[in-house]
Amino acid sequence: MTEGPAHGYGCDATDETDVAALFDRVSGELGLPDLVVYNASGFLMKPVMEIETDELVQQWNVTCLGGFIVGREAARRMSERGSGSLLFTGATACYKGSANFAGFAVGKFGLRALAQSMARELGPQGVHVAIVNIDGEINGPDHAHEIAEKGVDALLDPDAIAQTYLALHRQHHTAWSHEVDLRPAIEKW
Amino acid sequence: MTEGPAHGYGCDATDETDVAALFDRVSGELGLPDLVVYNASGFLMKPVMEIETDELVQQWNVTCLGGFIVGREAARRMSERGSGSLLFTGATACYKGSANFAGFAVGKFGLRALAQSMARELGPQGVHVAIVNIDGEINGPDHAHEIAEKGVDALLDPDAIAQTYLALHRQHHTAWSHEVDLRPAIEKW
Amino acid sequence: MTEGPAHGYGCDATDETDVAALFDRVSGELGLPDLVVYNASGFLMKPVMEIETDELVQQWNVTCLGGFIVGREAARRMSERGSGSLLFTGATACYKGSANFAGFAVGKFGLRALAQSMARELGPQGVHVAIVNIDGEINGPDHAHEIAEKGVDALLDPDAIAQTYLALHRQHHTAWSHEVDLRPAIEKW
Amino acid sequence: MTEGPAHGYGCDATDETDVAALFDRVSGELGLPDLVVYNASGFLMKPVMEIETDELVQQWNVTCLGGFIVGREAARRMSERGSGSLLFTGATACYKGSANFAGFAVGKFGLRALAQSMARELGPQGVHVAIVNIDGEINGPDHAHEIAEKGVDALLDPDAIAQTYLALHRQHHTAWSHEVDLRPAIEKW
Repeated sequence: MTEGPAHGYGCDATDETDVAALFDRVSGELGLPDLVVYNASGFLMKPVMEIETDELVQQWNVTCLGGFIVGREAARRMSERGSGSLLFTGATACYKGSANFAGFAVGKFGLRALAQSMARELGPQGVHVAIVNIDGEINGPDHAHEIAEKGVDALLDPDAIAQTYLALHRQHHTAWSHEVDLRPAIEKW
Repeated sequence: MTEGPAHGYGCDATDETDVAALFDRVSGELGLPDLVVYNASGFLMKPVMEIETDELVQQWNVTCLGGFIVGREAARRMSERGSGSLLFTGATACYKGSANFAGFAVGKFGLRALAQSMARELGPQGVHVAIVNIDGEINGPDHAHEIAEKGVDALLDPDAIAQTYLALHRQHHTAWSHEVDLRPAIEKW
Repeated sequence: MTEGPAHGYGCDATDETDVAALFDRVSGELGLPDLVVYNASGFLMKPVMEIETDELVQQWNVTCLGGFIVGREAARRMSERGSGSLLFTGATACYKGSANFAGFAVGKFGLRALAQSMARELGPQGVHVAIVNIDGEINGPDHAHEIAEKGVDALLDPDAIAQTYLALHRQHHTAWSHEVDLRPAIEKW
Repeated sequence: MTEGPAHGYGCDATDETDVAALFDRVSGELGLPDLVVYNASGFLMKPVMEIETDELVQQWNVTCLGGFIVGREAARRMSERGSGSLLFTGATACYKGSANFAGFAVGKFGLRALAQSMARELGPQGVHVAIVNIDGEINGPDHAHEIAEKGVDALLDPDAIAQTYLALHRQHHTAWSHEVDLRPAIEKW
């Protein structure tokens, strides 16, 4: 990988006009991306009986609808070129609806449905679609408390996550993965 | 089962005020239901790259959001009473995102997430939540063509479906099913 | 259901000669069965590193090989007649390999593979193959201790289980279930 | 990776004495392996009603029992050291029992059960256990016919498969994958 300066762009992933404009702008400045990652996610932890309708919709908008819009815009451009990778960040809540997690799981299940359909549609067009289910907490600047409590080995290292995303991007087109899980060695699951 | 006259009520399942009013009206006229079935579903068959944002949202509203609103309103009332069954109608698209079916699967995956979370939350409160994944076409007034082509055995009989829903409703509280599939004996799967 | 006297026959399910002889004897005395249930199961709870090879083989023989032999013998006879139900008793260990449960899960996963393949092969021949995953402990004569500790509602009632097996046997051939789960309402899962 | 000469050793994976002796010999000559791959597999394609009992047992011995013996012997040694990777080669038949594939799926489902239990037991001891489900045919010296018919892009490249195995072995211990799928971009699934 040639390392170079990082560029940051802001965008509302749930606004299709905004997303399309961002793809156009980035493509103009840097070229059409080789790799697009949809990372954004809502989070909600409460029983179904206490979830407000607006709350559920808002969660789904960020977790799933944004993934659809970004994924569709990337797919339209990448399929024309015939190459590129599109990676979605999933979670255990992609395939298990736990108590108090409906608000999160409704969006994450939906994102997994989207990723599966897209992989089947776009693989033959040269675009690699995959979803990475992260099972655990990710280490970050605000995690001093968790590290003190559970130890640093209980948190996923962000660089380690990035290595798996990059390995997915670099897979040969005769041996692509679609769904991959990631968790700490010491995680209970 | 005591058979009696059927009552029909109309309602927009994606409008929480409408749904709550319907539950109140039915409860006043017939008593709080013992069994609620959420059957409504969108359907969309096209590649992700061709799906309009509004189309996806509309599909999800009917397939998943309506299930959430009806399920929540039923749960609030049934959990207070400590009994009742809440059945969701699923599909193969609840757990498989096929090519050209993202618009359908995003909603059905979400409905399955909802059902799983609700079952875990409401079982201990005496409310039985289950999802029935129907894998095949259902026989009905408009299916003369399908019957002529594939034979009547290739279509699910609606009364046969109803028997399984009723069997789920009547299960003893120490042996509840959560997820059940239904398909014709001759179906390829 | 016409109730009648029960008949007990002994047989080593892992011995194909014994199983075939039993089917012939029962068919002669009572007629070819309409419903065959494979219930037998091993159980082993220890880490993989401590499991003896013979132990694993013995577990698999009872849990999976016996199911294959009984299932095959039933299928050969029922498919000729063009009707009958063949039900396998599964468990959570059919789809989740927990720590310390490899010895149990290897057999139960295998049983689920067998049931899936058989359902696809035999459905078009009129034979209904299903698997019931029982998630919890079953109430029985030796469970006074569990009842005292957790309450009778925490144990699956055997008659309640039987009702679901019977409902599966009676399903209409256009709406068959293949995989069904059963657990107490208050179970954590 | 330091490349060096390859060493070949023969062994009957279903004979625990043979497997233990091989581990001892290799450990003496090269050191305890960092990475063990269980690749061996049976294959059988016929309806359940036509499978001989001995045939099923033989398939299971190679596909699953050998995996257990090799996995257990590797685990006993690697867990003592506190490091190492143990990779099992799976297939679609690990999670889907298709018609005519019971003889294959019974073993592959069992192997997946084994891998899941081992991952949960050995992760906290520093040993990474994963399973790679290969969905498609692998390119090899005998595949001229398949290449001519479907094109070289329809077959998994062995080096590409090896890259994913190596990437799994090199994952950081806070972000391990357990189950990964691999298939050609153009595969229908």
